Amino acid sequence: MTTYSLLILPGDGIGPEVMAEVRKVIGWFEKSRGLSFDVSEDLVGGAAYDKYGKPLADETMAKAQAVDAVLLGAVGGPKYDNLDFSVKPERGLLRLRKEMDLFANLRPAQCFDALADFSSLKREVVAGLDILIVRELTSGVYFGEPRGIHADDNNPDNEGGRVGVNTQRYTSGEIRRVARSAFELARKRSNRVCSMEKANVMESGILWREEVQWVHDNEYPDVELSHMYADNGAMQLVRNPRQFDVIVTDNLFGDILSDAAAMLTGSLGMLPSASLGAPMANGRPKALYEPVHGSAPDIAGQGKANPIACILSFAMCLRYSFGLGAEADLLEKAVERVLADGVRTGDLMGAEGGKPVSTAEMGDHIVAAL
Amino acid sequence: MTTYSLLILPGDGIGPEVMAEVRKVIGWFEKSRGLSFDVSEDLVGGAAYDKYGKPLADETMAKAQAVDAVLLGAVGGPKYDNLDFSVKPERGLLRLRKEMDLFANLRPAQCFDALADFSSLKREVVAGLDILIVRELTSGVYFGEPRGIHADDNNPDNEGGRVGVNTQRYTSGEIRRVARSAFELARKRSNRVCSMEKANVMESGILWREEVQWVHDNEYPDVELSHMYADNGAMQLVRNPRQFDVIVTDNLFGDILSDAAAMLTGSLGMLPSASLGAPMANGRPKALYEPVHGSAPDIAGQGKANPIACILSFAMCLRYSFGLGAEADLLEKAVERVLADGVRTGDLMGAEGGKPVSTAEMGDHIVAAL
Ligand SMILES: CC(C)[C@H](C(=O)O)[C@@H](O)C(=O)O
Ligand SMILES: CC(C)[C@H](C(=O)O)[C@@H](O)C(=O)O
Repeated sequence: MTTYSLLILPGDGIGPEVMAEVRKVIGWFEKSRGLSFDVSEDLVGGAAYDKYGKPLADETMAKAQAVDAVLLGAVGGPKYDNLDFSVKPERGLLRLRKEMDLFANLRPAQCFDALADFSSLKREVVAGLDILIVRELTSGVYFGEPRGIHADDNNPDNEGGRVGVNTQRYTSGEIRRVARSAFELARKRSNRVCSMEKANVMESGILWREEVQWVHDNEYPDVELSHMYADNGAMQLVRNPRQFDVIVTDNLFGDILSDAAAMLTGSLGMLPSASLGAPMANGRPKALYEPVHGSAPDIAGQGKANPIACILSFAMCLRYSFGLGAEADLLEKAVERVLADGVRTGDLMGAEGGKPVSTAEMGDHIVAAL
Repeated sequence: MTTYSLLILPGDGIGPEVMAEVRKVIGWFEKSRGLSFDVSEDLVGGAAYDKYGKPLADETMAKAQAVDAVLLGAVGGPKYDNLDFSVKPERGLLRLRKEMDLFANLRPAQCFDALADFSSLKREVVAGLDILIVRELTSGVYFGEPRGIHADDNNPDNEGGRVGVNTQRYTSGEIRRVARSAFELARKRSNRVCSMEKANVMESGILWREEVQWVHDNEYPDVELSHMYADNGAMQLVRNPRQFDVIVTDNLFGDILSDAAAMLTGSLGMLPSASLGAPMANGRPKALYEPVHGSAPDIAGQGKANPIACILSFAMCLRYSFGLGAEADLLEKAVERVLADGVRTGDLMGAEGGKPVSTAEMGDHIVAAL
């Protein structure tokens, strides 16, 4: 029997609470479906800083490299806001992404029927929404050199005397590999990819556009490809999001646009994400799964958090890391059933009421529905 | 009597059509309010490229430097999509912004009551919306060096062999001056500024945050200041845009976020913008006014375009360049009246009907309402 190795990094804020519910789901799959998981747990973010003085210990990094998949909760919190840049909780997450070379970040923005009224957009604009944003995750301005803040001494006109620099840098190879991920995924969906950049003002955007087009023309001519400036993309996401199937974009645009897209659905507590790298020796991609929402320090430790985004991230893990599509479907269906039954954590409580539950009760309902 | 000098640059696509209606409005102010304008006209964008082989002739640039204010229509179109980067229509606009040093781009996102149902957002989320985005316009990744696409020969791992680079670069002085603009404007509004960056991943964002805070603490302690990561900003704009008064952000984030904010209102054809520089010898700021919408090549030359955004840009010109607040109010009221009367260009035609008019007829109605 295959044993799947998992590293769980609950992180900060509501991370540990929502991850506890994922543990229940993992337990159910072991008991009832005969799957075998080898689960270890460690620290990331502020929790790791508190113990090790840095947001990701080298031993933890090594473990992450060795397992089949990493499940991450969330990082960050006000307690760590004034830490030096190099040890901020976010650096732990960024180190994982970079060193595991997780170049393709998959962020589905789906509108659940039972929750469509939660959106600030009109129901008819978002009902049935199903977009997949593929964000490049290991390059661009997040990692480009040179970077930093330094004195600008030779410039007497610069009041304040400092200058801050970051570098947006993409190689053609980095663009091609994430474009391939987007085209592959589109083939399993509605076969359409829209690529977003600012080729009208940035040379890196021109390269992006040309390389995506190259991959299309040479390898995926059957997929419909369009290009859009990222500012127009933001507009079109607000105006008529259902025009999109797969969107592929760079690290920074992807950060902003995927968050806007997530908010269109009205239920951030529902949205999972997968970050995938190249296939390992066993054929599985390096992978990290995490909810789109943050660490929500304001409600941490109160049993109010919605564990669904984290549980659905585990469903993505079943599908993308282990090829267990049927099991992933099963879990997603169980979540839908629970929602259709009106079971609601606080964030999902709307005008039409519902059965209010805690984080743990939501997990129990989902396991029961399985 | 003061004579105000104006340079009109209609540009491409619907630019000339909408600018013709601004001319009518200018004529009305001359005839009925005794104002005196010295109006000249020239080419920018694709139109300039067709005649001069570049998107802004040096003589036009010199004229723009000499006048009290520039009114611009729009630039770009499919005909110019394959031009070399250096002569693309956009470069004409970017040259104006940079050489006139128009560092503060004011983009109001206002929801007109008569048009609230046009928004893809629920009426209760956007009715009464009144945000002002102040976007830094002369620096950041739009202008930073080094930039370009070059061969990456020493990197055998780089499939495709090229690399694209842009540089995000801000000096403390650049940040401080646009922050001051935002604080000044906030004092005339609801006295709240929200500054957006990605200080969690970019050092230039840390510098941005620190310098905005410095200006606040030293010069505008009476204004309420908050900071937000730009991805969260995109989310919050979709979730609950009315939480904002003035937003100040950098060139690239401002491009994306102001377009998202514009689309919240549902009526892009209504939104003006002002780009302001430092005061000239006569005390007036260097200034360029343009609608937020683009050149809309698909409807150009058909009398379908909505001239209101361009006309309201002229209202901003009256207010910010000439200190003619009463005249600006008058013009804005005339536009509101025409809308309340149900006069509608095609883009404003909704389920509830209205009186359909052409571009020219809309201009006539507004002049009549004056
Ligand atoms: C926490 C932060 C570093 C991160 C990012 O900017 O990528 C987050 O916003 C995300 O989108 O995963
Ligand atoms: C036309 C283009 C260069 C411009 C920009 O990116 O600034 C436009 O999108 C804008 O927002 O004014």
